[in-house]
Amino acid sequence: MEFQCLTDLKCLSKMPKSHSSDIDRLIQVLAKVPGLGPRSARRAVLMMLKKKESLMTPLAERLEAVAETVGECEICGNLDTHNPCHVCEDVRRDSSTLCIVEEVADLWALDRSEGYKGLYHVLGGTLSALDGVGPDQLNISSLMERIESGTIKEVILALNATVDGQTTSHYISDRLSEFEQVKITALAHGLPVGGELDYLDDGTLMAAMRARNSIE
Amino acid sequence: MEFQCLTDLKCLSKMPKSHSSDIDRLIQVLAKVPGLGPRSARRAVLMMLKKKESLMTPLAERLEAVAETVGECEICGNLDTHNPCHVCEDVRRDSSTLCIVEEVADLWALDRSEGYKGLYHVLGGTLSALDGVGPDQLNISSLMERIESGTIKEVILALNATVDGQTTSHYISDRLSEFEQVKITALAHGLPVGGELDYLDDGTLMAAMRARNSIE
Repeated sequence: MEFQCLTDLKCLSKMPKSHSSDIDRLIQVLAKVPGLGPRSARRAVLMMLKKKESLMTPLAERLEAVAETVGECEICGNLDTHNPCHVCEDVRRDSSTLCIVEEVADLWALDRSEGYKGLYHVLGGTLSALDGVGPDQLNISSLMERIESGTIKEVILALNATVDGQTTSHYISDRLSEFEQVKITALAHGLPVGGELDYLDDGTLMAAMRARNSIE
Repeated sequence: MEFQCLTDLKCLSKMPKSHSSDIDRLIQVLAKVPGLGPRSARRAVLMMLKKKESLMTPLAERLEAVAETVGECEICGNLDTHNPCHVCEDVRRDSSTLCIVEEVADLWALDRSEGYKGLYHVLGGTLSALDGVGPDQLNISSLMERIESGTIKEVILALNATVDGQTTSHYISDRLSEFEQVKITALAHGLPVGGELDYLDDGTLMAAMRARNSIE
């Protein structure tokens, strides 16, 4: 029985190519970017090749510049071109409150919302027994040092409302309970703004009901 | 009445930033890549910053390399590091058939399907009265020159099955009718492989019915 051409690897390797391997390699790397897959990466490369001056070259230059200059802030773990980062260096911020987040993305998201003007501390993940992440893998010792320095009066736990996030919140509030002068708070649970009751899960509805406020 | 902070532009410009403008500019450029928007670009940048060596730097280098080396093939309009491109230079291909496609993406797609081993010609779009695209804006004069050279025996019109694509097909087959030795064909219409009748549009079903084949 003969193999069909489609399954015959020798045949595939001899297949004539419509473009060079340089383009292929670019597509392969671009496909690893979250949000893109092999198909959308191919489409993106074709589009960029049409807009070389306005898109492809600037993108290459900026990626290189950012890759060279951006690093982790030694104080809070934010990613920035400065070290310490813009947030830690900003004297207008309230240095007595510290908001603990899982990832840099959460820091940026909270900062965009403009509901908070204090400092941050990025843990770099959550405790997870399954993934083998213990307290030593997170930025918890640097957090303890910041709090020991004594300027912080309130710690806001702004971790994700997932099981791992809440476990980590509990762990941190336990560790912080030795500092009696520090108030520990957590983000409120409730209806998301613009959310419809009908589409919300039971857990959120229950939390919103439990934390109901009196309207005066 | 005082404006709220959210709508006050002065206030926004004074707003403390959580990261430097270099990162912002990278996000802005990346958000222009098709398939990504501002939100997914931000997520992609954060992910890339975590994988600088394995993702960000290689991506920057490959983008630069491709932007520098890739250009349009002077014969067929394909995008490649070589000029003439891999397809036009491949002696194993059947140089007597020419497949006309709208875009380079279509050329790559047909070539991946391995159902065709001839040459290609990329029009660079379709005729469109609304967008002001006439025959002079497409690679039609170079197409006529290739056919006048006399080696081509069959022209396959592989344009999209859209109104503009079919209009352009008609226009090209009209122009080619003067070459009596050239056979003009078009891709078949019918059921897509793996497609279910129930989900297909009426036009496709009608075309498939009209072009039905006898099974022997």
